[in-house]
Amino acid sequence: MSAGATNEEATPSGDREGRIVVVGGGFGGLACARALGKRGTPTTLIDQHNYHLFIPLLYQVATAGLSPADVAQPIRRILRRYESVRVINARATGVDTERREVLLENGRHVPYRALVLATGAQYNYFGHDDWAAYAPGLRTINNARTLRANLLAAFEQAEMEDAAAAREALLTTVIVGGGPTGVEMAGAVVELCRFALARDFRSIDPRSAQVILIEAAPRLLTAFQQRLSDYAYRRLQSMGVTVRLSCTVQTLDRQGVIAGGERIRAGNVIWTAGVKASDAVSWLGGTSRPDGRIEVRADLSVVERENIYAIGDTADCVDAEGHALPALAQVASQQGTHLGKALDAWARDGTAVPAFRFRNRGNTAIIGRNAAVFEFGRWCFTGRMAWLLWGIVHIYLLVGFEQRVLVATQWLWHYLTYERGARLIERG
Amino acid sequence: MSAGATNEEATPSGDREGRIVVVGGGFGGLACARALGKRGTPTTLIDQHNYHLFIPLLYQVATAGLSPADVAQPIRRILRRYESVRVINARATGVDTERREVLLENGRHVPYRALVLATGAQYNYFGHDDWAAYAPGLRTINNARTLRANLLAAFEQAEMEDAAAAREALLTTVIVGGGPTGVEMAGAVVELCRFALARDFRSIDPRSAQVILIEAAPRLLTAFQQRLSDYAYRRLQSMGVTVRLSCTVQTLDRQGVIAGGERIRAGNVIWTAGVKASDAVSWLGGTSRPDGRIEVRADLSVVERENIYAIGDTADCVDAEGHALPALAQVASQQGTHLGKALDAWARDGTAVPAFRFRNRGNTAIIGRNAAVFEFGRWCFTGRMAWLLWGIVHIYLLVGFEQRVLVATQWLWHYLTYERGARLIERG
Repeated sequence: MSAGATNEEATPSGDREGRIVVVGGGFGGLACARALGKRGTPTTLIDQHNYHLFIPLLYQVATAGLSPADVAQPIRRILRRYESVRVINARATGVDTERREVLLENGRHVPYRALVLATGAQYNYFGHDDWAAYAPGLRTINNARTLRANLLAAFEQAEMEDAAAAREALLTTVIVGGGPTGVEMAGAVVELCRFALARDFRSIDPRSAQVILIEAAPRLLTAFQQRLSDYAYRRLQSMGVTVRLSCTVQTLDRQGVIAGGERIRAGNVIWTAGVKASDAVSWLGGTSRPDGRIEVRADLSVVERENIYAIGDTADCVDAEGHALPALAQVASQQGTHLGKALDAWARDGTAVPAFRFRNRGNTAIIGRNAAVFEFGRWCFTGRMAWLLWGIVHIYLLVGFEQRVLVATQWLWHYLTYERGARLIERG
Repeated sequence: MSAGATNEEATPSGDREGRIVVVGGGFGGLACARALGKRGTPTTLIDQHNYHLFIPLLYQVATAGLSPADVAQPIRRILRRYESVRVINARATGVDTERREVLLENGRHVPYRALVLATGAQYNYFGHDDWAAYAPGLRTINNARTLRANLLAAFEQAEMEDAAAAREALLTTVIVGGGPTGVEMAGAVVELCRFALARDFRSIDPRSAQVILIEAAPRLLTAFQQRLSDYAYRRLQSMGVTVRLSCTVQTLDRQGVIAGGERIRAGNVIWTAGVKASDAVSWLGGTSRPDGRIEVRADLSVVERENIYAIGDTADCVDAEGHALPALAQVASQQGTHLGKALDAWARDGTAVPAFRFRNRGNTAIIGRNAAVFEFGRWCFTGRMAWLLWGIVHIYLLVGFEQRVLVATQWLWHYLTYERGARLIERG
């Protein structure tokens, strides 16, 4: 296409009725745009970032194992082959449901025929948004780079610190939340201290660093079977992580946390204790839930709105038994693909969108070297077998052949040498 | 060493006379610390970053080919095996020559027995420091990430832009300076547009993007032989770069540049037109030159100062024929190794530091696919042969086996697919 072509999204011209607009290039939005693109349906995908982020491996960026580009792929490149799909790299700020337009931060309006909200989730501090300053979550590349810089900088400061108490505090990391991200972070941080940093300092011994994992529930990994939770607990303890169950955080500040009535001085606190949906719900005007999710019907359409759908972490969707679907990449992907196919049929001949049905593809979380949990229906694995499955599944799910090769190469290298290759302190 | 050990640099205790202090972990400082470490001499290396940056490949980070961690290695890890070497990750702000201490930004003082200044260079805007805001240079990871984001964002904006003139300006990149960095950037930017981005947009054609290289001298690569300059000129022109020789920049602003009397509207201007030494000279109180370099004697000691040495881009050093040594990594490395060995002998028995003698190991610059120049003494190569040599030399010079494998893998992949793997817009 020549540089002289007009930009159809930017000018509210003839095809106002023409395009399906997807907001968000995460697992859900991307799957939806792909399904539409494969079928040649005119589609526009809007995202504030120019890349799709593979959040399941973001904790490895935060712990100096991988680089941001290893877990992020340009959305344009992923959708390159689908000529009917356009990509807009801009932040959406609202929806005009009367005029059927998405509003962008840069002042432009994007008209839609049907709208798919796939704007994902952010960390939920349960009413204490000021805690975000002391305990960053892990949802964006900037989060991961900040956490990486904070973790590594604490060791650098400790190396220069004369007072033993201050040094000990700097070498303490508290992770709040014992879900998959919390367990993965705890394992990765303790391995970073025990192995990769072990011999690099002269005044401190990184192996003496404390990692404390705090979970409000009586067990870790509550989405998994009890025996997998028990395995994760034992394994983390044996790696040197202090796990505190049935323990809630009362206060969080610059010095650390008060949890279970006890003050823990910590150089770093990391928040993985829960997510809430992004503000897309406010764009539609207040059908909000406490977790920010948008209520959808079985066909993923937003209640009381016309031609608007929500998927992934944005949607409050229940399965056939009435249980809320979890905030997992596989739920978002399946919803995206389902909706993409259905909206193509709808756009062609008005076929109604059928009800979405989730198929559980299994669930897995890594703890550390040779240690993971893997669950598929009644089957479950732990240890080296689960760890291998975890690795294979994640390499397979990564977008792009180059990323697969690079990540596999780095994992092999780290496994053999106990090193971490991306130990950069840089905050941008 | 236990966590209870005292921190010798931080407290001005007994070994005030004991340690050799190196400021800067670039090619010079690192080579110096390594040579001292190999010989067991008590040494402290101070750097504001926790990593050594391989600047010769930084342009590939700026053009989305490599990730920052591919060209940066933690200084601690490089020096891990040398027990006598300590590393301080802090910014040096001055030198107290009376008390023989280096002053750090965090308020601490580091006493030295001998001091090696290896603080490198920064871009020189020749009196127009305000130009830095419109035309970033390329000396740090942040520079590279900013340039990468600016280059990619210009295409995203152009895709949304309706006005043809504005679109054309966004798709124009001006590179000021026809030295190795300018030539390498021009080649890499034009390949990014022609190949990696070519099919990713719908309203614009990235292949129509303009790349303009401006050089004040009558030829490119003035440090190389004339026939290599001519080759680089022809090659860049055939790749689609507009090269303007004997052309100087009069003004630089948000809209672009005025150069050779002509206004060029550009979405991005990149500055590679010259370097000046960092402010280390001001720490010693005004032995300054216009280029900021510190005048040193043949033994690399600073004129009129005791037990202070300067190496690399910081030093104004002349060879046997009285010519100033160029600002090259190999000069810095050789000076560092020379000084490290000599200061070890000096620390042991007071042996005087011998004069430094530079041995030219050859010089090379890459232009693009299958195109480079390589010069060694009277021999010189161009084309695919030089390109292969360039690749082999740079893989060999990279610090760390993991980096070598990852960079080689990415280069092979990019060569085969014409892709660039790190196309992230993120500004930190």
